[in-house]
Amino acid sequence: MVASPKALLDELKRLFGPRVLLARPEKAVYRYDAILVGEEPLAVVLPETREEVQALVRLSRNFGVPLVPRGAGSGLSGGSVPLEEAIAVAFTRMTRLEVDPRTQTAWAEPGVTTARISEAARPFGLFYPPDPASYRTSTLGGNLGENAGGPLCFKYGVTGDYLLELEWVDAFGEVHRLDRKAYDLPGLLVGSEGTLGLITGARVRLLPFPKHRATLMALFPQVEALAEAVSRAIALGAVPARLEFLDASCVDAVEDYLHMGLPRGHALLLAETDGDDPELVQEELALLEETALALGGKVRRARDEGEAEALWRARRAVSPALGRIRPKRVNEDIAVPRSALPQVVREIEALGKAFGLVVVQFGHIGDGNLHPNILFDPRRESEEKVWELAHEIVRVALRHGGVLSGEHGIGFMKRKFMGEAVDPETLGALEAVKEALDPWGLLNPGKVLP
Amino acid sequence: MVASPKALLDELKRLFGPRVLLARPEKAVYRYDAILVGEEPLAVVLPETREEVQALVRLSRNFGVPLVPRGAGSGLSGGSVPLEEAIAVAFTRMTRLEVDPRTQTAWAEPGVTTARISEAARPFGLFYPPDPASYRTSTLGGNLGENAGGPLCFKYGVTGDYLLELEWVDAFGEVHRLDRKAYDLPGLLVGSEGTLGLITGARVRLLPFPKHRATLMALFPQVEALAEAVSRAIALGAVPARLEFLDASCVDAVEDYLHMGLPRGHALLLAETDGDDPELVQEELALLEETALALGGKVRRARDEGEAEALWRARRAVSPALGRIRPKRVNEDIAVPRSALPQVVREIEALGKAFGLVVVQFGHIGDGNLHPNILFDPRRESEEKVWELAHEIVRVALRHGGVLSGEHGIGFMKRKFMGEAVDPETLGALEAVKEALDPWGLLNPGKVLP
Repeated sequence: MVASPKALLDELKRLFGPRVLLARPEKAVYRYDAILVGEEPLAVVLPETREEVQALVRLSRNFGVPLVPRGAGSGLSGGSVPLEEAIAVAFTRMTRLEVDPRTQTAWAEPGVTTARISEAARPFGLFYPPDPASYRTSTLGGNLGENAGGPLCFKYGVTGDYLLELEWVDAFGEVHRLDRKAYDLPGLLVGSEGTLGLITGARVRLLPFPKHRATLMALFPQVEALAEAVSRAIALGAVPARLEFLDASCVDAVEDYLHMGLPRGHALLLAETDGDDPELVQEELALLEETALALGGKVRRARDEGEAEALWRARRAVSPALGRIRPKRVNEDIAVPRSALPQVVREIEALGKAFGLVVVQFGHIGDGNLHPNILFDPRRESEEKVWELAHEIVRVALRHGGVLSGEHGIGFMKRKFMGEAVDPETLGALEAVKEALDPWGLLNPGKVLP
Repeated sequence: MVASPKALLDELKRLFGPRVLLARPEKAVYRYDAILVGEEPLAVVLPETREEVQALVRLSRNFGVPLVPRGAGSGLSGGSVPLEEAIAVAFTRMTRLEVDPRTQTAWAEPGVTTARISEAARPFGLFYPPDPASYRTSTLGGNLGENAGGPLCFKYGVTGDYLLELEWVDAFGEVHRLDRKAYDLPGLLVGSEGTLGLITGARVRLLPFPKHRATLMALFPQVEALAEAVSRAIALGAVPARLEFLDASCVDAVEDYLHMGLPRGHALLLAETDGDDPELVQEELALLEETALALGGKVRRARDEGEAEALWRARRAVSPALGRIRPKRVNEDIAVPRSALPQVVREIEALGKAFGLVVVQFGHIGDGNLHPNILFDPRRESEEKVWELAHEIVRVALRHGGVLSGEHGIGFMKRKFMGEAVDPETLGALEAVKEALDPWGLLNPGKVLP
């Protein structure tokens, strides 16, 4: 309980005027990310400058009230959800963006949406590769906080791989701007979900836009054959830009929704190659086609961009298709060695049956990043059981040499598992870093660390 | 002064037997890296396992004697040079290496030489891209400690970009093994020169070996035209694998040494493109050729691998060629925005003249990483003046928006400049991290931080 909430709120109003939200319906929106619900914040503040962020940190310390930073709230691990009485700091008004084609970089404030970076870079023949599914709404600050990935990350890497320089406000209210030399504090802040500092700007690397793309879809009666086809093609030198996998339940759901003529009970692979040379792009896809055919896959190869778009509809239809089965879902995010993937998919299928809950699985198979989704109806099915199953799914990943989070971050959802994934001594080292950079524990408490 | 050096040495002998070096001539070797000379260590220890590294950390703490980790000693910033009475920990016996072609990764102990990783990966069609000039002798541990780059880093990135998982022993003697999720402590240790922990193993990412390469050399009467040609070609979409620059003094030195027929007073560009498609590789090189010709460059294009090798001899001959001018040199390492490069080269040239010292310049022009070398004869020229000039060179870089270190690390050589390159608040944050992870200050004291 804050000692003098009125004094705090008065000070916020004085500093931020209409950019502090205090009405309950307005504040309620900031309890959520795309999966979890937390506590209603004391206030929501929409800063516009780094000096305002500094002022917020000083207020937070003076009043002992935590800050919970957030972007668009499209996160999937509860990283931006308030867990106690706190000020929600929404960075959506900090949207300055400058593309520098000479250095092939962009300087962006944290509220810039991911898609906008590529849009601003396009006139210069450049793009920003990290592409989380929510890239039209998600913000760079949130992407950095969670070190977000996306379908392109097998070939192109994740958000942190594109960070050249970071500006942030620390727990002491100081502004830092640092490249990645000496101690890589910018890299340390990537994936730290606002628990070590509040990001106010970033210089990111852009890449020349590939001139050509090609797509195929392959359907397999068994997940094993699909995973093996991917592994063989990669071993032969293919570096597809996107490699998406849908399990049979997921394919059936998509077919019920779209009526694309997909065979029932089959696992589906969507692959895209890209590059500047059209022949090479086709050759790389041919490698995937040959290995898929050799392993009993049925292949559809897109002849042009239009056909490619039609095939990719299957992937994009996953969310609405699943929404027709049950109104709610928990979207898990694990990563396992690709060779373990068929076994992991089977075990998670069996767990779903044992729990009596609908589980579908899809993900970025190139790097073994799997999203098992538990579909449920909160009016008829126990949410507690859903979370129990979600935890069992994480344990399957850890048992097979996998990791807690592929690309959604640890947040609140996975923090309990840090104790199972990381040994106590290493957790101690993580805590020492948190203690050094946020001695009062006011930056996004209750996230990342157990 | 250590309280009881005899007790410490006895304990070291008991634990490490013949793998502790105590004779003065043996120890003297460990005072050096490739540039600087430090203090003679109390003892040199050659651990073979991570448990032995843990034992060393415990001894260090019990006796209050610092540890100075080192690989091959080929560093260029004094990172591995002892600055006080210390135990030198040479990781050259920890050389276990396992390539896993299925995951396209390698697990390597810190003493594995950089070149050996690519050699072990080659039978699987893979390679390890970071290629510091010393890659035949330098070790992975040293490369990680300095976040080493190399000619390929413009296209392929630096050492840290290839780190997937790190094992290290911390100041408390605990072993950690962590991937790059949650708080990225592995990333924090990259470039920290052993000041935050001692690396005992790393999983690195491998890439499929490009099937084709092409090379050209271009000579320009002015550095400006050379830099502009590079910038234009990159803006047009060329992503050369290697882009090396030699200034006119450097070219003259090479010509005196090799008699290749290089025109005097010209700046030289060497460019290599690579990829799986031979036509695309040639097209990318053609982009460079056209822009070079348009800007008054004289171009020699290699018709085959043999001719390419002959052209690359010019670059590889730099070190011996410079050795004939003066017996010693200080190899600076700055990075500036590519657009500032011509001006920076001119200012450094002028500084050399003002100091009456021979300065030659070369580097990786793609990312503006410049190596101004001050050549001197310690019998005739003042070493103090040499270092004064080296410092002025760093100031030129900082004035032009550049950074302290391109790829050699901060080490001992650049630490004084951290105070000019980084503001006091940010230095405070770096110190807090050091204090949290090495509270007794026994891990490579006197490096990185001022």
